[in-house]
Amino acid sequence: MQRPVISLLTDFGLRDHFVGVMKGVILSICPDAQIVDITHDLSPMAISEGALLLGCSYPYFPPGSIHVAVVDPGVGGARRPLAVRCGERFFVGPDNGILTYPVADGKDCQAVAITNPKCHLAHVSATFHGRDVFAPAAAHLANGTPLEELGPAVADPVLLDLPEPRETERGLEAHVLHVDRFGNLVTDLKWERLDKWLGDGPRERMIIEAGQRTVRGLKDRYESAPEGQPLALIGSAGRLEIAVNRGRASDHLGLTQGDSILLRKAG
Amino acid sequence: MQRPVISLLTDFGLRDHFVGVMKGVILSICPDAQIVDITHDLSPMAISEGALLLGCSYPYFPPGSIHVAVVDPGVGGARRPLAVRCGERFFVGPDNGILTYPVADGKDCQAVAITNPKCHLAHVSATFHGRDVFAPAAAHLANGTPLEELGPAVADPVLLDLPEPRETERGLEAHVLHVDRFGNLVTDLKWERLDKWLGDGPRERMIIEAGQRTVRGLKDRYESAPEGQPLALIGSAGRLEIAVNRGRASDHLGLTQGDSILLRKAG
Amino acid sequence: MQRPVISLLTDFGLRDHFVGVMKGVILSICPDAQIVDITHDLSPMAISEGALLLGCSYPYFPPGSIHVAVVDPGVGGARRPLAVRCGERFFVGPDNGILTYPVADGKDCQAVAITNPKCHLAHVSATFHGRDVFAPAAAHLANGTPLEELGPAVADPVLLDLPEPRETERGLEAHVLHVDRFGNLVTDLKWERLDKWLGDGPRERMIIEAGQRTVRGLKDRYESAPEGQPLALIGSAGRLEIAVNRGRASDHLGLTQGDSILLRKAG
Repeated sequence: MQRPVISLLTDFGLRDHFVGVMKGVILSICPDAQIVDITHDLSPMAISEGALLLGCSYPYFPPGSIHVAVVDPGVGGARRPLAVRCGERFFVGPDNGILTYPVADGKDCQAVAITNPKCHLAHVSATFHGRDVFAPAAAHLANGTPLEELGPAVADPVLLDLPEPRETERGLEAHVLHVDRFGNLVTDLKWERLDKWLGDGPRERMIIEAGQRTVRGLKDRYESAPEGQPLALIGSAGRLEIAVNRGRASDHLGLTQGDSILLRKAG
Repeated sequence: MQRPVISLLTDFGLRDHFVGVMKGVILSICPDAQIVDITHDLSPMAISEGALLLGCSYPYFPPGSIHVAVVDPGVGGARRPLAVRCGERFFVGPDNGILTYPVADGKDCQAVAITNPKCHLAHVSATFHGRDVFAPAAAHLANGTPLEELGPAVADPVLLDLPEPRETERGLEAHVLHVDRFGNLVTDLKWERLDKWLGDGPRERMIIEAGQRTVRGLKDRYESAPEGQPLALIGSAGRLEIAVNRGRASDHLGLTQGDSILLRKAG
Repeated sequence: MQRPVISLLTDFGLRDHFVGVMKGVILSICPDAQIVDITHDLSPMAISEGALLLGCSYPYFPPGSIHVAVVDPGVGGARRPLAVRCGERFFVGPDNGILTYPVADGKDCQAVAITNPKCHLAHVSATFHGRDVFAPAAAHLANGTPLEELGPAVADPVLLDLPEPRETERGLEAHVLHVDRFGNLVTDLKWERLDKWLGDGPRERMIIEAGQRTVRGLKDRYESAPEGQPLALIGSAGRLEIAVNRGRASDHLGLTQGDSILLRKAG
């Protein structure tokens, strides 16, 4: 039998024992689990960023994988602990929007609140549901426990208002969703929409106003711009990305998460 | 047969190859090992902090797990390399106090010095016993090698003087053991002792002097205080913790590891 | 059957989802893979440092292991994606020198370009070959796919010009290859060469000019120098290393990667 895959994404950092303890709990319940870290270095409480990275990651995991995502400023409060099945994949985390992307992507979703005490640790603390609720629930799912056994159905999981590019008089406005490790600016403009917006015109016609700079055309790789110069391309997430060849676009252009860029077509 | 779990806790950081090499060594000796990182981001040489995080972690791992803890400023010197069994769990690390908590917690402990060259790598360097001594010893234990085969019994493993809360004329003095990723202040006051000290009186009577601030009562979750305000609660380690709702208590109160706080009862 | 070991070394950092996604891809193709991180915290684009850490790591992994190393500023451009067998081990990465050490060490090497689309993901992006090319190629090798099936032979993989100590009129000049987490300065002087250079003379005769300081003799461990004082020893990589007992040699001596030190023999 194949070993079940459980991925973890949190804002717990790696300085403390939090992530290691979640893994100890998982292996205590499901000794066969194959555990994979997505990231634990989200800024504390960065729900929307965590949601995005989860959305970029889960499609690359094997069907049947269980994805645990815990960015949980409301831990111990009224927010529900959720387990969601979308197609053949499972997602576990607080009901605060962290699971938005798979639910928004998925056509066949089913959500429950993890209220069954048998799917918690014996003692549930008020401050560490990653260990006491989410890790055990994921491990039980990995053992084959049916979703419905975790708790009652939830019809209205919290979904984030995802930023969307919008047509304005001046052009198409897109937004920076994430600045990655290399300083690349990942936007909310997906390649399908960009393609449609560009139509049959040559891609060289595109002009992007990004910070104080103007970026022309759509390149196919970082090296297509001179070293140190900004460029636009479709990044690995299938989204418009502003980068600098061998540099950091975020520093170069002075842009960060939440900022807007404007796409125009040259005359 | 179940795959043996080996956890790793070091101050080696993740920038170098040190931790990866330890895992390579473990898998060379025990290919079935399931390896889990607790943390590698301890401040260099922070023995007491490493000891605490190990103490907070091991109870959440399956029985039979082997926990390797290497914070080892005296590597290559006179300090002994230890392997300890406490109940059904094993601990491996230098004899400098890093294994204090499981030994102090455990009722049935047995310690040996890892001197058997068959349980070392063929060449033992003077500076990296994590790779050359501790990882191989853990892997041999995982393969079922009896503890006694690693080397001679050690009757007096080094134990840290653990800080303890103390009654003073002014009240109960507790100490900050650890500042976690979120800036929460974890103290040496366990809930059992706090409970006893509070007695039958209402928990709202408790007043904590922490830095220049006064914190009243005992909350049950972070959100029970207004945003940005400090509060006291029993944290996930079963210890009194000072936190700030959606903020960093360490910054807010100007307190760090080793600092004292004072608990009083309102009149 | 033994589970195949795949190690990962990149400059992707752990803040993003990049490394987790590579693991998802590997487990989708080879569910039995045992994945080990070497490091992901290389400075962006630090090819020579990545090459060194790979060279220090792979000998400690079991034969048959597959080592993926991705520091890839030229991603999407003309550089070839390589898979190399050296003896019983496999290496996967861009053809930019990152695989220099195993190729330079190995006597029996065979290299191919990973051009077979069956060994890529279905869609190959221009910016993330770690996910789309290297992770799948490693997973196919782990499944037993013969090297030749990945693509055509490559006769001339790019090799870095590795720094070498050189004899000068003033003495033996060595170079700092890497500053590790503890501030230790790892040099390009291997113990075999140092031994030969020292000859029969006492090791105490050796004088090292390092920054503004002079270090005498060769110690056998960090604690052989007074606390806070610099010393020279053979480090865990079998190379001359300058360290400071319970301190950071890089700060103490003001030396970093690329700097030279000079070894002389006292009269």
